[in-house]
Amino acid sequence: MAAEQDSEGLCAARPMLTDLYQATMALGYWRAGRARDPAEFELFFRRCPFDGAFALAAGLRDCMRFLRTFRLQDEDLKFLASVLPADTDPEFFQHLRALDCSAVTLRALPEGSLAFPGVPLLQVSGPLLLVQLLETPLLCLVSYASLVATNAARLRLIAGPEKRLMELGLRRAQGPDGGLTASTYSYLGGFDSSSNVLAGQLRGVPVAGTLAHSFITSFSGNEIPTDPMLATATGESPKVDLPTTVKLWLERVCAYLGLAVQEPHPGERAAFVAYALAFPRAFQGLLDSYSVKRSGLPNFLAVALALGELGYRPVGVRLDSGDLLQQAQEIRAIFRTVAAQFQVPWLESVPIAVSNNIDEEELARLAQKGSEVNIIGIGTSVVTCPQQPSLGCVYKLVSVGGQPRMKLTEDPDKQTLPGSKAAFRLLASDGSLLLDLLQLAEEAPPQAGQELRVWLQGAQEPSTVRPAQVEPLLRLWLQQGQLCEPLPSLTESRAFAQWSLSRLSPAHKQLKSPVLYQVALSEKLRDLVHRLSGRGTP
Amino acid sequence: MAAEQDSEGLCAARPMLTDLYQATMALGYWRAGRARDPAEFELFFRRCPFDGAFALAAGLRDCMRFLRTFRLQDEDLKFLASVLPADTDPEFFQHLRALDCSAVTLRALPEGSLAFPGVPLLQVSGPLLLVQLLETPLLCLVSYASLVATNAARLRLIAGPEKRLMELGLRRAQGPDGGLTASTYSYLGGFDSSSNVLAGQLRGVPVAGTLAHSFITSFSGNEIPTDPMLATATGESPKVDLPTTVKLWLERVCAYLGLAVQEPHPGERAAFVAYALAFPRAFQGLLDSYSVKRSGLPNFLAVALALGELGYRPVGVRLDSGDLLQQAQEIRAIFRTVAAQFQVPWLESVPIAVSNNIDEEELARLAQKGSEVNIIGIGTSVVTCPQQPSLGCVYKLVSVGGQPRMKLTEDPDKQTLPGSKAAFRLLASDGSLLLDLLQLAEEAPPQAGQELRVWLQGAQEPSTVRPAQVEPLLRLWLQQGQLCEPLPSLTESRAFAQWSLSRLSPAHKQLKSPVLYQVALSEKLRDLVHRLSGRGTP
Repeated sequence: MAAEQDSEGLCAARPMLTDLYQATMALGYWRAGRARDPAEFELFFRRCPFDGAFALAAGLRDCMRFLRTFRLQDEDLKFLASVLPADTDPEFFQHLRALDCSAVTLRALPEGSLAFPGVPLLQVSGPLLLVQLLETPLLCLVSYASLVATNAARLRLIAGPEKRLMELGLRRAQGPDGGLTASTYSYLGGFDSSSNVLAGQLRGVPVAGTLAHSFITSFSGNEIPTDPMLATATGESPKVDLPTTVKLWLERVCAYLGLAVQEPHPGERAAFVAYALAFPRAFQGLLDSYSVKRSGLPNFLAVALALGELGYRPVGVRLDSGDLLQQAQEIRAIFRTVAAQFQVPWLESVPIAVSNNIDEEELARLAQKGSEVNIIGIGTSVVTCPQQPSLGCVYKLVSVGGQPRMKLTEDPDKQTLPGSKAAFRLLASDGSLLLDLLQLAEEAPPQAGQELRVWLQGAQEPSTVRPAQVEPLLRLWLQQGQLCEPLPSLTESRAFAQWSLSRLSPAHKQLKSPVLYQVALSEKLRDLVHRLSGRGTP
Repeated sequence: MAAEQDSEGLCAARPMLTDLYQATMALGYWRAGRARDPAEFELFFRRCPFDGAFALAAGLRDCMRFLRTFRLQDEDLKFLASVLPADTDPEFFQHLRALDCSAVTLRALPEGSLAFPGVPLLQVSGPLLLVQLLETPLLCLVSYASLVATNAARLRLIAGPEKRLMELGLRRAQGPDGGLTASTYSYLGGFDSSSNVLAGQLRGVPVAGTLAHSFITSFSGNEIPTDPMLATATGESPKVDLPTTVKLWLERVCAYLGLAVQEPHPGERAAFVAYALAFPRAFQGLLDSYSVKRSGLPNFLAVALALGELGYRPVGVRLDSGDLLQQAQEIRAIFRTVAAQFQVPWLESVPIAVSNNIDEEELARLAQKGSEVNIIGIGTSVVTCPQQPSLGCVYKLVSVGGQPRMKLTEDPDKQTLPGSKAAFRLLASDGSLLLDLLQLAEEAPPQAGQELRVWLQGAQEPSTVRPAQVEPLLRLWLQQGQLCEPLPSLTESRAFAQWSLSRLSPAHKQLKSPVLYQVALSEKLRDLVHRLSGRGTP
């Protein structure tokens, strides 16, 4: 983790990436002598994104990196001094300058956990002034990460387990770091790879990519390759002149497909040959720069068959326009007949990759039974989450000086749940999830096999539940600034996300009009809410 | 600009923030001996965002910073080597290691310019391998910046020139850098300020912010202020015990409003007093933590009137829930009667600020004639651009080795315009905009007063136009890596954006179903498109 911190530290959130009111409130707390009052905040969302019934918690690794390196610099204080009152006591800035997270304790859902409305994704406790300052960056780091992970998980549910999903949205992301976050957390949510090199370098996300139209259109066909010779795959036979071999195959392919040999674009073929010379073991043909059937496909086949003769296998073709499903079916059919004609069985199963503004609906079409599409590249739809581009997490004060706090307000949707809490997931004997329970931290945990009285949110009457298993949801990651256990790797969190989702009933996993998952309050928590709502002063 | 670079360099885009296929294509070009072929790419969009008829160009300052610091590091090459073929020629990596933008030339629309479909926002020329590598980061930097600037400009058009617009979306942004970009470019697009401290520190965006509900709910009313004494505004009279003065005013206010003096929440009042002690010249009351009329408003009035007595003026109130417009009207009415009752005329005009998921529709309501709202805070709607979260810019090869290049494809929407181009805005004698003209770089510029034959996009017949003025659109910013002129400041670009918009006719500025602005091709450019479409090989 140390190397990761070094390389990413300055790129990630920093203390000044915050709302000004955090700094003005800090001065307010300090002036009131309350800077060090022990306080606790909870970060949660009020509604699952995309009209679904679940979310995946994510962003914790970024929060940990942020907290462990939190430190205001001299130039930061200089700027803050320029926007705060001119007569602000210099001791306030000295206080800020000395701040770090050594007094912060953090509990959180592990990354990849199922998360539901009102259940804290993070519980942050420490000195009031400091944990207030942390609000905006933590929201910024958790909210979008969880949104993208959830979005990716939905797309994975649509695609099913077999199709390979590739994230390629960097160019559509909302800023460079948005791109890095999106690539990281779409992988966590169930994608297989990303086009984003930095996500590979810094986060270990598998990266993938071959060539774009510009590579193809940059060749006219009149270029003379510096070195047209290619070794065979085993390296045992003498080198072969690839363009010449391709030319011979082009004639055979065109004759078989009933095309004139002049039809396939010579520039496109030159580009394919150039790419194959550089990547003989990873040749992919992008078919739609000119015409798929009259140019891209015969050119691909000529190069693929020439490579095949030398013992190499192409890694696939890609389509980026038109009716992707129908073209995939047609191309697969041609692969099959050409494979039979030239007795090259490997050609039948060359992977077909597609991309071009694929959303949930189009993905469902491409993933339907019988589809010949193997790899699906998704950009804008996974990265920007157009169905709902923000999760709307909030960070609310739940206790200060050991006393529970609650925002009452006249808008019931904006009320908060007071007090330091624990959260549990209750399961039935068959392992299915019953509900999540929020209770006060000081209450004894629910016991497996024992009946409990709980209050489902919004209910007027209590319910009873007898869980066969009880799982605590929040883990202690930082205690007084000390790391309590290492974070799982991104790949581990990705597997945990898929496992977590596998336990959720299909009714809750439905993407449209799902059955909502229940979050309940313990009797004691519910009493506290009632008591504080009655008057507001604890 | 040097200081800005230092502090932001690592935070912004870096060379590895790119799609893997840029690196694989780079190897392909290099292997084909074409790494240094002179090439030109154009960055443009195909459709204006949000179903509107204009966009604002933005992101150039980030592109310049990226280009001027572009350099692959040893650890970058190490990572690339790990994902490229094991037998890749080490000279390729040496070539990459030596790359910088000293051979890159950049023309671009100045930031804040009106931009229309097909007109290049950037023209990037230089060695083929290098300018290909630049694709993804440039798209990432321009696309979102222009989207946010355009979105902000639309919101400004709705709000009118008087209302103060404050961006406060950092917590809803898609990643930390998304937040910084959003704050910067929503200011460019017409907002007045941002909550984002880092945008103030690094970009000079005016920052604003006071206090949140957590500050208020953190006080129970039982706290004892460390120092309750406040100097008068002039500093000439002795200090006054603020809580005591507030208490006296509370009694007068409650008596006048017909409230019991116990009704207003003591914790809320303690919070207001604490904030006023820290910010006597910038006191703002957030009214809706408990109950606006029974608590927030009387508490605010008590503190405001106490401050007033000491010669200070509060800077406003803020509402964050409920019917914002109606509450503003009611609060203004109360301000007026209280002002009359206690003979404090300044109270009448205390600014009313509102926030809470404000979108275009709600903004129109809040900005309607007679509205008493003065300051409008917008977060999610400006930052995430929910109506269309991505602009969908593309970066297309238009020439290589001096020869025009074109992506033909079977999807006419995805065809590109070939050749190195110049772009002009043609104006009528009254200064209104007629159309934008794209022509080949080698053509003579259109002359004011002379009739021109042009082809409107999609038209089957040419049109004639006689511009009274002709403005070149693209400026030369970098020539062979050298800065040609300094970039305007962000504030200058912001003013330029408003001036640019002021020249656009209302028909094009309509936010729904606008009249589309015309972009035309010169006769020669149109001939080239025709010629290349006929066969594809130049």
